[in-house]
Amino acid sequence: MPSQTLTLNSGHQMPLVGHGLWKIANDAVADHVYNAIKAGYRLFDGACDYGNEIEAGQGVARAIKEGIVKREELFIVSKLWNTFHEKERVEQLCQKQLKDWGVEYFDLFIMHFPIALEYVDPAVRYPPGWFYDGVTPTDIRLSKATIHETWEAMEALVDGGLARSIGISNFNCASILDLLRYARIRPATLQIEHHPYLVQQPLVKFAQKEGITITAYSSFGPQGYVEMDLEHAVKTPHLFQHPVIKEIAAAHKKGTPQVLLRWATQQGIAVIPKSDTLPMLLENLDAKEFDLTEEEIKKIDALDQGLRFNDPWIKGGWVGVWGIRA
Amino acid sequence: MPSQTLTLNSGHQMPLVGHGLWKIANDAVADHVYNAIKAGYRLFDGACDYGNEIEAGQGVARAIKEGIVKREELFIVSKLWNTFHEKERVEQLCQKQLKDWGVEYFDLFIMHFPIALEYVDPAVRYPPGWFYDGVTPTDIRLSKATIHETWEAMEALVDGGLARSIGISNFNCASILDLLRYARIRPATLQIEHHPYLVQQPLVKFAQKEGITITAYSSFGPQGYVEMDLEHAVKTPHLFQHPVIKEIAAAHKKGTPQVLLRWATQQGIAVIPKSDTLPMLLENLDAKEFDLTEEEIKKIDALDQGLRFNDPWIKGGWVGVWGIRA
Repeated sequence: MPSQTLTLNSGHQMPLVGHGLWKIANDAVADHVYNAIKAGYRLFDGACDYGNEIEAGQGVARAIKEGIVKREELFIVSKLWNTFHEKERVEQLCQKQLKDWGVEYFDLFIMHFPIALEYVDPAVRYPPGWFYDGVTPTDIRLSKATIHETWEAMEALVDGGLARSIGISNFNCASILDLLRYARIRPATLQIEHHPYLVQQPLVKFAQKEGITITAYSSFGPQGYVEMDLEHAVKTPHLFQHPVIKEIAAAHKKGTPQVLLRWATQQGIAVIPKSDTLPMLLENLDAKEFDLTEEEIKKIDALDQGLRFNDPWIKGGWVGVWGIRA
Repeated sequence: MPSQTLTLNSGHQMPLVGHGLWKIANDAVADHVYNAIKAGYRLFDGACDYGNEIEAGQGVARAIKEGIVKREELFIVSKLWNTFHEKERVEQLCQKQLKDWGVEYFDLFIMHFPIALEYVDPAVRYPPGWFYDGVTPTDIRLSKATIHETWEAMEALVDGGLARSIGISNFNCASILDLLRYARIRPATLQIEHHPYLVQQPLVKFAQKEGITITAYSSFGPQGYVEMDLEHAVKTPHLFQHPVIKEIAAAHKKGTPQVLLRWATQQGIAVIPKSDTLPMLLENLDAKEFDLTEEEIKKIDALDQGLRFNDPWIKGGWVGVWGIRA
């Protein structure tokens, strides 16, 4: 099954629909990745912070060993965690993550947040998470690394062949503008929370205009945060049951998840949903095989509430950075 | 009338209630400033972009000449416009602005936005505004200046005695974090849009924890944007008529504007309302002479909608940067 792809500013091709690995349990992720490859997925979106890269790599290895896919047909994404922003840490950690995955290079390596935290030795705790001691929500320790310093070290990963493309995540317009002033290698992608409750059209348009491809995470909105008991996610109407989404899904004889994904991909935005079952795997992958009308896209746009679930600074966000909690 | 003040991290005192100069007509601003000084105001918040610094300075000069106030009793604020971010421009423009005001130093000089635009010669057009040619909303030209470069030039203004304190405006948490990594002189203040529809508690708490004083602009919410015909401001219920604000105002026998201002100042946030009449001048200044209950503050907090009016990137924002319009 040939996947539809986007051409990045690095010249590489990136699948439009991939599979996210956040919150997949360690004992499930190897099978999950293996089955997703069999179902046709080529892009896997991992991160140090997800704590399951070794097992994800096992799934990849099995699929390659069985001849289902070749390494060069896959698009493996990983992310630099906040505690490794100092220039001397970036390659060290990227090398560790490559070893965990069992691959020679990442197709895309992303700065996970524009937030530099104090180094935590992987021998002490890995993944290190947000809190310096691992448990206390107010124990946030900042690093002295600037984004400029970290980006230069990311660029060196491309020079050294450890990453084919490099990207950023959770940056806003002003942070991107500043980065673009000094970047020798421009970010190939910007990964952001993006769903009908958080449309962020100006950020999307700005990045696209600057040649930066958008990848949406949390395409299903509150869904992924309800399981984490995040208060304002629990209170928000589920997008799978939203009358506007249901009506459009019925008109196309598709599922509501497919409509949510197609709304993004049709705007050239890559998606990385997590699928729990084989039917979901196939349905999500199908989310580029039909077209919404312009009117339907606008109807979905109109659900925008500026509602963000994954933001360390937003009241009600999922981490207690600065001691602010829901 | 001794004003209540806040102590900045620079060691200087800043009045808690000041007077904003945005959108005061050139032929009115000299009298306005003069009368505000007579009414007891000591802080005036100006900017290159407001286009009325010469006239504001005339009001100051008259008050000083008449012995109503001494220069050292005033707190004069101005701002560096986006087109002057290159390191060789910062002092040049600050010197011009000091000359316009007719003063030897600014008490506070602020980087107006974390956005660097291409230089426009003041001889060609002043103030230069957002658009390179002065009129075409899509003609946005970026400069190569990084925020780091601009901030170093701002620090040099303190070294040279041109500004006693330096600050930032319209920065978010991530941009501030990055700045703090390289700042030799930390920003004394952060000026942001702040009203009950845009509470931004995490940003406020974060900045305050980092020792940066918050100044609120647009404390009356949509008010200042209705006169500009900004669509989502016109549609939003006016805060002066909001039942929650009216109820609290009645309980304290105060005006609704005073309640809106006191809600901020009681949280240690400085305010810079614009007052159109002498009674308003006096009432706004009074907004630190009574206390809201904790319950009343929470009731006002609960009006938060994350609704921003002054943002170049937000759809519906007041400038068409990136060609995105309401």
